[in-house]
Amino acid sequence: MSDAVTIPALDYVFHPRSIAIAGVSAKEGPGFGGGGFVSSLQEVGFRGPIFLIHPSAPAIRGLRCYPSLLDIPDEVDYCISSVPARFVPELLEACITKGVKVLHLFTAGFTETGDAERAKMEQAVVARAREAGIRLIGPNCMGLYVPNGRLAMMGGQPAEAGPVGMISQSGMNAGEFVRYALPRGIRCSKVISFGNGADLKAADFFDYLADDPETEIIAAYLEGIQDGPRLARAIRKAGAVKPTVILKSGRTAEGSRAANSHTASLAGSLQIFDALCRQAGAIRVESVEELVDMAVTFRFVKRVAGPNVCVVGGGGGASVLAADDLGAAGLKLPPILPEAAAKLAKVTQEAGTSIRNPIDTMSMWQPGGFEGTLRPVLESENVDMVLYHTSFGMGPGARFGNERDRSRDNALALGKLQAEFGKPIVVAIRPATTVEGFAYSEEFQEFCWRNGLATYPSIARAGASLARLVRWQESRIPG
Amino acid sequence: MSDAVTIPALDYVFHPRSIAIAGVSAKEGPGFGGGGFVSSLQEVGFRGPIFLIHPSAPAIRGLRCYPSLLDIPDEVDYCISSVPARFVPELLEACITKGVKVLHLFTAGFTETGDAERAKMEQAVVARAREAGIRLIGPNCMGLYVPNGRLAMMGGQPAEAGPVGMISQSGMNAGEFVRYALPRGIRCSKVISFGNGADLKAADFFDYLADDPETEIIAAYLEGIQDGPRLARAIRKAGAVKPTVILKSGRTAEGSRAANSHTASLAGSLQIFDALCRQAGAIRVESVEELVDMAVTFRFVKRVAGPNVCVVGGGGGASVLAADDLGAAGLKLPPILPEAAAKLAKVTQEAGTSIRNPIDTMSMWQPGGFEGTLRPVLESENVDMVLYHTSFGMGPGARFGNERDRSRDNALALGKLQAEFGKPIVVAIRPATTVEGFAYSEEFQEFCWRNGLATYPSIARAGASLARLVRWQESRIPG
Repeated sequence: MSDAVTIPALDYVFHPRSIAIAGVSAKEGPGFGGGGFVSSLQEVGFRGPIFLIHPSAPAIRGLRCYPSLLDIPDEVDYCISSVPARFVPELLEACITKGVKVLHLFTAGFTETGDAERAKMEQAVVARAREAGIRLIGPNCMGLYVPNGRLAMMGGQPAEAGPVGMISQSGMNAGEFVRYALPRGIRCSKVISFGNGADLKAADFFDYLADDPETEIIAAYLEGIQDGPRLARAIRKAGAVKPTVILKSGRTAEGSRAANSHTASLAGSLQIFDALCRQAGAIRVESVEELVDMAVTFRFVKRVAGPNVCVVGGGGGASVLAADDLGAAGLKLPPILPEAAAKLAKVTQEAGTSIRNPIDTMSMWQPGGFEGTLRPVLESENVDMVLYHTSFGMGPGARFGNERDRSRDNALALGKLQAEFGKPIVVAIRPATTVEGFAYSEEFQEFCWRNGLATYPSIARAGASLARLVRWQESRIPG
Repeated sequence: MSDAVTIPALDYVFHPRSIAIAGVSAKEGPGFGGGGFVSSLQEVGFRGPIFLIHPSAPAIRGLRCYPSLLDIPDEVDYCISSVPARFVPELLEACITKGVKVLHLFTAGFTETGDAERAKMEQAVVARAREAGIRLIGPNCMGLYVPNGRLAMMGGQPAEAGPVGMISQSGMNAGEFVRYALPRGIRCSKVISFGNGADLKAADFFDYLADDPETEIIAAYLEGIQDGPRLARAIRKAGAVKPTVILKSGRTAEGSRAANSHTASLAGSLQIFDALCRQAGAIRVESVEELVDMAVTFRFVKRVAGPNVCVVGGGGGASVLAADDLGAAGLKLPPILPEAAAKLAKVTQEAGTSIRNPIDTMSMWQPGGFEGTLRPVLESENVDMVLYHTSFGMGPGARFGNERDRSRDNALALGKLQAEFGKPIVVAIRPATTVEGFAYSEEFQEFCWRNGLATYPSIARAGASLARLVRWQESRIPG
């Protein structure tokens, strides 16, 4: 982790004291666009004033409207543009006159349209902004989610901050990252959706997050490579000081074409990008889900002594497939040592169970059986980590006593044992298929992460993540 | 599909008129084991009498108990053994005397323990049963789920039957298959958990399901290869007449060892099994999730004219990753034809949208926009199928009007358009992360399958399944 305590130069971008929004409809509900930003900022509790720009409405959603940015009596640090592209140059001029520091262009319809005139307009806007010293986020993006700055780009984004910084060329993938990560205990320092990256680019944000004292883990979704050498430097800088995980789209011809249509990105060669990541000590993944999985892994597992995992949970078939999934990922399932097996034999029923590895035993659902099964495993020298798997709303577990109490007790025990033995315990929770099962799963998941445990929605995804962690650690051992 | 209307020889196994259960505890709740079978059979509405065998209790859960099988005054077709392994020989003798036709050994602790004495006991039980003409299911298995016969192996298994037959060497994987498949509209003809397969083996069940007029699609989970040549014949027979999908564990050393520990299975070479599947026209998959995905694909998509898919849904980043996922799976995303693009341009807003392929457009959330977006796509000659993606509880969709009404209307429209154009429309529903979002997702999913639509929990899984369907169809074209 970085020891930097200096405030990075771009920090002011993430901490505006006041915001103006241009392009909020007086009619529409709290939908997409301008109105969406109003409701997101109100929901997350933005601490400064929000000024709306509207040609005629006196107020919208309780917020005072002004005919133009220049009519606002107070200072404006940050302006969000939700007006059509053709009005952006005029809005930019007003920002310059007003002394706005950052213009976030939610507005799309620039280079990504493939239209030469519109590409030219984007270039002109960037040139004018640079000349005037205004930084642009976008165009064609959702902007910022900064819990400590009380900025949010979408509803449901909490004010609670955490150590994960995220850079995304897609607002949707930024939103999905936050949404998937939240119930698994991931909280964010800064999330940045930067779209076409006309002014501020991925490299700027990697640089910033590498220096940001609030950020310990960096995740990114990239569609294109802008200014390759500078991006490479920034990724190397980030990868050297913090776990850095990158999802790069455009791994197929289909995806490259779509990326170009989305953010005007030229995807570039995946082989070259892959080599860059390896050099930089960054991990490349292939889906938003894997990006979240690695954030969870770095946040809660942090590090592991080796590739040897012991699988514990009920269900023979699940155990066999777990062994396949973990083996295929590159992890090892060492046979349980004789002394551990002897202890397990004492708490394990005979029928339908296995006390090798995976350990498939009904004893875990009996009083004292949960810790009684896990302790001998964690004591074993040949076990570096434990994967516990379960599900809710079906199976034998659903029938044994009070499922909710047991799940809380189990999460507490897992957290306690992880701390006591200093070995990671991760939890795979198979998907629920009923509303009740889902509610139980979510509750158990929260008990888990609040007790310091990494959770995954499948054994395969846990295995892939842990294997990536092991390989990443190996790659960082100085040769 | 098979034209067979003769009743397969093994059919009596699946339609017992009365059941006896040995090994139900008088104390325990409706947990695992004997008591679990009682509650599952009661829940699914077994139509005949259920007799319990208990040394002293007069009745358990309202059911009359008898000290021994031989004390039961009526005929017993089917006996479930939940007694410890050492009591099984005695129970088998009672079954022979009583004229029981099928003995299901939930009882474990035989060959899979790795103990030579216990393997010998299993062999002796099989020999004695064969001599007496009793068929054995198991040992070490959950037995049968037969909706039309009102048999269930676990709670939550409905009495409603459907066209999917499933064979599983693991009770848990059989249960997970049913559980995952249910909310996606899959109903089953017969589900068979057969464990060690000491008497009745996978080959018997493939043979049976190939002939079974109630079964149109066959799914299987296998751990080992018993009597290879016979199994190969049975899979070829099944694959020739019905879509057949097989999950074979033991693809790694770790998985092979676990399979041996679970059901005494020798996993065999995956290469050889893979070749067998290809020859037989069966599809090999690598997870229970993929097994369910293919059942959904064969049940609802059935067939598709070619590999050309058009992706429709909101979200630029999701669209780009969709293109990558589908391209990587081997599908094609043809550019939208000019005439379709012209029609789409009329219903599409400018900002933040793309009317190429993937189609990322907010117009779908406007009145008339849903069908207005899909029709030009479905009319296009270069589109063989449409993938629509969405999610609930987040994103712009969550804010536009009444989400529940819209989702029902959308599912109706998708089903209507699929029928009208004769092109498959499949639906990817990204996972919910809140209880409310989950409830909405489940409801939308049910609207979808009741309107004949295949649903998948991710674009990647939809793509992998559709690509498998395309390749399977190609492999079946007579050369």
